[in-house]
Amino acid sequence: MALKTISAKAAAALDKELMSSGGFSIDQLMELAGLSVSQAVYHVHPPNKGRRILVACGPGNNGGDGLVAARHLCHYGYQPTVYYPKRSKNELYQRLSKQLEDLNVPFTDDFPTALSSTDHIVDAIFGFSFSGEVREPFPAVIQALEETKLPITSVDAPSSWNIEDGPPGSGVGSTFHPAVLVSLTAPKPLVKHFRGRHFIGGRFVAPSIALKYDFDVPQYSGIDQVVEVPTSGNKL
Amino acid sequence: MALKTISAKAAAALDKELMSSGGFSIDQLMELAGLSVSQAVYHVHPPNKGRRILVACGPGNNGGDGLVAARHLCHYGYQPTVYYPKRSKNELYQRLSKQLEDLNVPFTDDFPTALSSTDHIVDAIFGFSFSGEVREPFPAVIQALEETKLPITSVDAPSSWNIEDGPPGSGVGSTFHPAVLVSLTAPKPLVKHFRGRHFIGGRFVAPSIALKYDFDVPQYSGIDQVVEVPTSGNKL
Repeated sequence: MALKTISAKAAAALDKELMSSGGFSIDQLMELAGLSVSQAVYHVHPPNKGRRILVACGPGNNGGDGLVAARHLCHYGYQPTVYYPKRSKNELYQRLSKQLEDLNVPFTDDFPTALSSTDHIVDAIFGFSFSGEVREPFPAVIQALEETKLPITSVDAPSSWNIEDGPPGSGVGSTFHPAVLVSLTAPKPLVKHFRGRHFIGGRFVAPSIALKYDFDVPQYSGIDQVVEVPTSGNKL
Repeated sequence: MALKTISAKAAAALDKELMSSGGFSIDQLMELAGLSVSQAVYHVHPPNKGRRILVACGPGNNGGDGLVAARHLCHYGYQPTVYYPKRSKNELYQRLSKQLEDLNVPFTDDFPTALSSTDHIVDAIFGFSFSGEVREPFPAVIQALEETKLPITSVDAPSSWNIEDGPPGSGVGSTFHPAVLVSLTAPKPLVKHFRGRHFIGGRFVAPSIALKYDFDVPQYSGIDQVVEVPTSGNKL
């Protein structure tokens, strides 16, 4: 049975509800989202498979999740490098960056060089609010991610994919197929085109909220903040 | 070798520094603290040893850590009940309570009845900022915790203990010896009187901060947010 998905519009409404009547702050949600991502990375690529990890962060919330994940990965013993070319002026993102600087995590503006000296990659460039064209400087970054043979973990969506329809028909991102996807709270419709290992993260959703938005809270195990689920794309 | 400890004054300065130049918000720190506590409880008392857990929350930050822990415990499959008689009017605590209400976690004002129908207890009443007398309605609660044979996990300090000197010489709390203690960021001097299982939580401290405040960042394992350490008290 395929997992239920939620549209970009529903995901935006869900976030808004969690942060109003749900009582969550964005700090809290982002902390739990980034923690989920870090746990999926640890599960798929434990540090003994290579400690160097390049975390590519976009300008919005997806990038913030990446900044949180990078911090947890650093505490787990990885050596993260952060590519964050379009830094948000929002104070939350500045604080998340400061937390990384205090851990001596390097920030780089040179994506190709960073890519040539890493063991795996976290793609936290665009999330469910992405639509339209990939803007500068990200087209070259997405293209490099398409071409690399290194394993990539995408946060919520493979960056450049349309949230409903999956990979673009042509151009940048049309052949981008990351090894791992971590869907946050619920998978988005694009998962039907995804062929890698699929995790769901965000172990904070009340059953009543999942019911309202018509998705399933997956069966997490133990104290895990992520759970691996069958990949829809394999079944097409 | 005994673990280095930090005084109540140093712990307050550390919190202040983390939340100013360190870039952390209180939401974020409380989320990670409560998560640590929930993981220690899971480790010591997995749900198959009894799902009913009574979380006793005080009026300040220690109580907030308890509210966060209760939420994670609920997601792990426990059945928490929260005793929170002196609710803070601060909006953060109201939001943490709302998150529990949305999970249908019951709040009770009747501590003795709740105590008679639980499998274990989290003591999140007072933390490192406690000093002086135990105020109403908590003397009877501490006394009940002293008398129960159920296992108790205390957050940062066994409630009523003096942060430097340990259990009071007489009266309420003088014979309070919880089974488990979760020290947050670093143990407080009272640990030299503690005889149970000791965990350290708070896997977010940069080594430079630990150096400045002269404590050790313990060796966490894997993705764990807590680590068990030898009990100082056993060595006295």
